[in-house]
Amino acid sequence: MARSRTPPRDELERLYRALQARQASSLADPALSDLIGEILAESIHVLARYNRAELQTKIPDKTYFAFESRDGKISRAINSALYQPSPQDWNLFIAALRSENFAGIDEHMITCTIYSVAIGFCAYIDLTRTGDQKTPGTFFEYLIGHLFGSRLDLAPSTRLPVLNLDMNTTLPTDFVFDLGAGQPKFHLPIKTSTRERVIQVWAHQRVLDGVYGTGRFLGTPVILAETKTDTRRREVTEICLPDQWRIYQMHIAQLRRVYYLDVPAAYERLNEVFPPLHVVPFGKFFTELDDLTS
Amino acid sequence: MARSRTPPRDELERLYRALQARQASSLADPALSDLIGEILAESIHVLARYNRAELQTKIPDKTYFAFESRDGKISRAINSALYQPSPQDWNLFIAALRSENFAGIDEHMITCTIYSVAIGFCAYIDLTRTGDQKTPGTFFEYLIGHLFGSRLDLAPSTRLPVLNLDMNTTLPTDFVFDLGAGQPKFHLPIKTSTRERVIQVWAHQRVLDGVYGTGRFLGTPVILAETKTDTRRREVTEICLPDQWRIYQMHIAQLRRVYYLDVPAAYERLNEVFPPLHVVPFGKFFTELDDLTS
Repeated sequence: MARSRTPPRDELERLYRALQARQASSLADPALSDLIGEILAESIHVLARYNRAELQTKIPDKTYFAFESRDGKISRAINSALYQPSPQDWNLFIAALRSENFAGIDEHMITCTIYSVAIGFCAYIDLTRTGDQKTPGTFFEYLIGHLFGSRLDLAPSTRLPVLNLDMNTTLPTDFVFDLGAGQPKFHLPIKTSTRERVIQVWAHQRVLDGVYGTGRFLGTPVILAETKTDTRRREVTEICLPDQWRIYQMHIAQLRRVYYLDVPAAYERLNEVFPPLHVVPFGKFFTELDDLTS
Repeated sequence: MARSRTPPRDELERLYRALQARQASSLADPALSDLIGEILAESIHVLARYNRAELQTKIPDKTYFAFESRDGKISRAINSALYQPSPQDWNLFIAALRSENFAGIDEHMITCTIYSVAIGFCAYIDLTRTGDQKTPGTFFEYLIGHLFGSRLDLAPSTRLPVLNLDMNTTLPTDFVFDLGAGQPKFHLPIKTSTRERVIQVWAHQRVLDGVYGTGRFLGTPVILAETKTDTRRREVTEICLPDQWRIYQMHIAQLRRVYYLDVPAAYERLNEVFPPLHVVPFGKFFTELDDLTS
């Protein structure tokens, strides 16, 4: 009943369902870039009806706001510098993706446009549903899977055969992109945030290294952000465990990159210690691909 | 307001809070065995007011029921053969624990009495609260932590120092019991069920092996059950991933034992393949301790 009174929400949901209906095997379809562009345009339209509430934060060099409904419900925290929702920017990025020519645009603009698509959709779900973590997570997985797959011109798989003496089974995995015989394969866990569950990413990398051989899979998780909002105090913090990440990287397995849309300050510093753990904005992936695979 | 009208619930909650108020460092206190005995007696008393609903299952050689409220809400599934709540049995077990003499009681009775304490409390929380997974999990952790610690006459710790060249930090862990210099240490993740999160248990063991040396920590997780109830069809299944467990045991780290209160059929068979993964009823721990540490 409520639905017929809120057509804009229906439109965003209709677009989301069209995305969600795709199998992983069709995620590199160029048509999905246009569908995601429609989702961006629609989310700009519907979010314009909400106020922006400034949030406090002690994170250096970052400011955050949230969209706020009339009854005081707020969305997740949105990085003010990264949120620049622009269909034009999206189209520029998609044109570069399709032509495989990234000469004309910079990495930061790519990070901003992907961040704006992702956080805009997530914020709208935060405002219109209660306790739905699954829809933002699924949307983000499809968004990143599509963009990563488009860059490689490859669809992901989510199961790998295990042939090990008397074992003959399949291993369920996060998205895996296989560049072919004698080429690297990408292991791509995709999360809106990790918190204490992050050890799973290293553990899955360890299993891939163990079953198929170290170096065969490049572990490159893509994560949206690690922000947490205290809704009463309206304050944003980043939940980070950099010492533990270093221990995981030394003792469980080696990740090649950790890509973030909104790179947490405490993890950015991991680039500067030895041995470095490369935590970089996701926009960089599109231009550094050749370095990763060579 | 509602609370003053439901004194039995208050009593169980009061007892639970008294348990929960304990620090990990006091978990081996013998007085907690008596407090848990009171919780068992009180849960028998309050659960007597609920009906028992038979549940369907295709699991061989097991039958399950659930407690059911007047409005049709049902508790988690309870293994009919293992649920034998008896304060006398509990007291016999506690007497054996205190005297370190297990000659008079068998492992199966120990498993049954611990299962009855755990599942009775969890069932009551299922029936009286909505969506509260935390309270059953915390209760189970304290119950198992107390019993394991009582057997070893040791309190657990949950942080370990890491001294590794220029690193000087602490590693948060599940319960760890340190028998002292030149002796094994136990690594004891405690879960009411594991599902797909189980890879964390192997990953944490891998970190301990890596940081402190392989063989220093005996990984012995304790898990309540892996049952899942389809509430509409009133059917119980066990969610098991035995092929993945074998891969984790081969490629991430080696667990010494996986203890269950209600051992899932599919995991019991892992004892029979080579290399075996020892999945056994928790009651066995109390009598096999000397074998584990020698």
